[in-house]
Amino acid sequence: MSHTDPSGAAEALIDVTEAARWLDGRVLRTPVLRAPAIDRLAGARVLLKAENLQAGGSYKMRGGLFAVGRLAAAGHAGVVAQSTGNHAVAVALAARRFELAATVVLPVDAAPTKVALARAAGASVVLMGTTVEERLSVTRRISAETGYPIVDAYDHPDVIAGQGSASVELIEEAERLGTPLDALVLPVGGGGGVAGACLAVAGRQIEVYGVEPRGCDSLARSLAAGRPVPVAPAPTIADGLRPSCVGGLPFAVLRDRLRGVVRVDDDEIADAFRLLLMELKVLAEPSGAAGLAGALRLAADGASGAGGASGAGERRQRTVGVVLTGGNVEADLVARLATTARVEEEVTA
Amino acid sequence: MSHTDPSGAAEALIDVTEAARWLDGRVLRTPVLRAPAIDRLAGARVLLKAENLQAGGSYKMRGGLFAVGRLAAAGHAGVVAQSTGNHAVAVALAARRFELAATVVLPVDAAPTKVALARAAGASVVLMGTTVEERLSVTRRISAETGYPIVDAYDHPDVIAGQGSASVELIEEAERLGTPLDALVLPVGGGGGVAGACLAVAGRQIEVYGVEPRGCDSLARSLAAGRPVPVAPAPTIADGLRPSCVGGLPFAVLRDRLRGVVRVDDDEIADAFRLLLMELKVLAEPSGAAGLAGALRLAADGASGAGGASGAGERRQRTVGVVLTGGNVEADLVARLATTARVEEEVTA
Repeated sequence: MSHTDPSGAAEALIDVTEAARWLDGRVLRTPVLRAPAIDRLAGARVLLKAENLQAGGSYKMRGGLFAVGRLAAAGHAGVVAQSTGNHAVAVALAARRFELAATVVLPVDAAPTKVALARAAGASVVLMGTTVEERLSVTRRISAETGYPIVDAYDHPDVIAGQGSASVELIEEAERLGTPLDALVLPVGGGGGVAGACLAVAGRQIEVYGVEPRGCDSLARSLAAGRPVPVAPAPTIADGLRPSCVGGLPFAVLRDRLRGVVRVDDDEIADAFRLLLMELKVLAEPSGAAGLAGALRLAADGASGAGGASGAGERRQRTVGVVLTGGNVEADLVARLATTARVEEEVTA
Repeated sequence: MSHTDPSGAAEALIDVTEAARWLDGRVLRTPVLRAPAIDRLAGARVLLKAENLQAGGSYKMRGGLFAVGRLAAAGHAGVVAQSTGNHAVAVALAARRFELAATVVLPVDAAPTKVALARAAGASVVLMGTTVEERLSVTRRISAETGYPIVDAYDHPDVIAGQGSASVELIEEAERLGTPLDALVLPVGGGGGVAGACLAVAGRQIEVYGVEPRGCDSLARSLAAGRPVPVAPAPTIADGLRPSCVGGLPFAVLRDRLRGVVRVDDDEIADAFRLLLMELKVLAEPSGAAGLAGALRLAADGASGAGGASGAGERRQRTVGVVLTGGNVEADLVARLATTARVEEEVTA
């Protein structure tokens, strides 16, 4: 199996349904939340899957646990992983659960919360460089030295399948509530979560959208080019969405399935962060809030709101699902974003 | 029926089970959440009932809806209520749902968030004084002028029963998880919620504790005196816990049923607020965080932690339920408390 195989053959290895079944009872079935103020702003019924409440603080726990669990069952004694933070935390926690050794590689400018979580889980933590290339290099070296397999943060079928289980649960819950999803929106880092979402909606009429910070838009550029295109990531408060290139396997899944990519700026992410905090009453990390920022941008653009031109859908309110992917954020950033909210409210009041 | 009847006769009118049944499907069945860091600090399994995610932002929605629903069914065309905020919001929202007129009276120093929520629900909002006596006076006058009944914030059997339904759900969920509660902890304002909790645990071996801010300890003083004793409420960040006196009906329920009262200071409430925000990933208002502050104080005192001396319980981990009663808080207070957290962590690191 090649993780960068664009032919579609590798996709057959991604079983979102199996991952959802395996993870049932092993991860938290996080609640689906709503807030009237968010519905009003979106002009739609917005169902938020609160994966910020997941064990380890993000939906990365799903892919990490599913992948590491399979490696443990296959007899491996350890694993190696790299990420900007949440995947590393997930792999560290998963390794502890299955009693495997874990080495995780994070950037030197990683969120201290994420480094602390990975260390608390008992993993060996290596801080290396600031780019994904630097981290991948040291990850491959450690894997070669130890013989432990690499659990890639998104270019891995079990990781994509695991992340997709969050979308499976959201789709099921929306149907149980009698309001099936019309659209499903997720933030994009390496593309694993949104690829899992595209597989989770199979057989249903649900449009899937990815959200990228402006200047970190490898997926949008890749879709335009027809092949994975790296970018030099621009600065963003969404630290988890900075990979320089969408993964080859996620791209193979996404290119014929994704409805579109929405670009958002840090102000929009901050607005979404504040809405989630003050209206939904939950703490998202900026990367997690980016999904809602994208849903609101889509609504403003008329693509996803109540005014969408989707034929029979015009007279009923649309239902938009958003996976709130994580909540590992620094206290000082919380304070800064919350304070900004107050000032803006005063200015606009 | 007298709301201040201490004889126990009035208690017979409080049907928590009926309220829970009636409210099922009419309010959100809020999730029960946990965080490893909170369990470690408490030395116990801490199950937090996230009523900050409830419609209207607090568990007061339960009592407000149940009481107003019954008044609507009885043919009343309007209602009047007073509170520091959340009960007023709840009555306003409930009145809108049943298409009744509502006038709510809040203090002039009420949290702007709560005033805005009550106004957004379509209620006539009166801001009057700073004490409960001032609010009660104008509430009685409005009731006399309009003929609309008063929905008291805690001295009302349906309000107590409705608030108690949050405890019913938490008790049920703990049993479903296979970890039945050993203790149940709630903050105390007028005592309605904790009285409902005492009725909700009927027939089970669950110790119920109330939590009061230091200097706002009318319940503790009343239990010591054997009768409701008012206090001149001290300043506290827990704006919802400032009533000057426990209600007569709650007191009648509590005096033979409550295991104890815990006093906490603002620093402990702020610590609990930060734990809820940064570890549980949810936004509580200080009054809502006070329940967790009390549970941690109990654990520190050895009354509720793993080291509790409860016979057969010594070798198994205790399970402590906490009703996280509300989440309506100002953005500037969030910023202030989150920043304080960072500074303290740096100091103690």
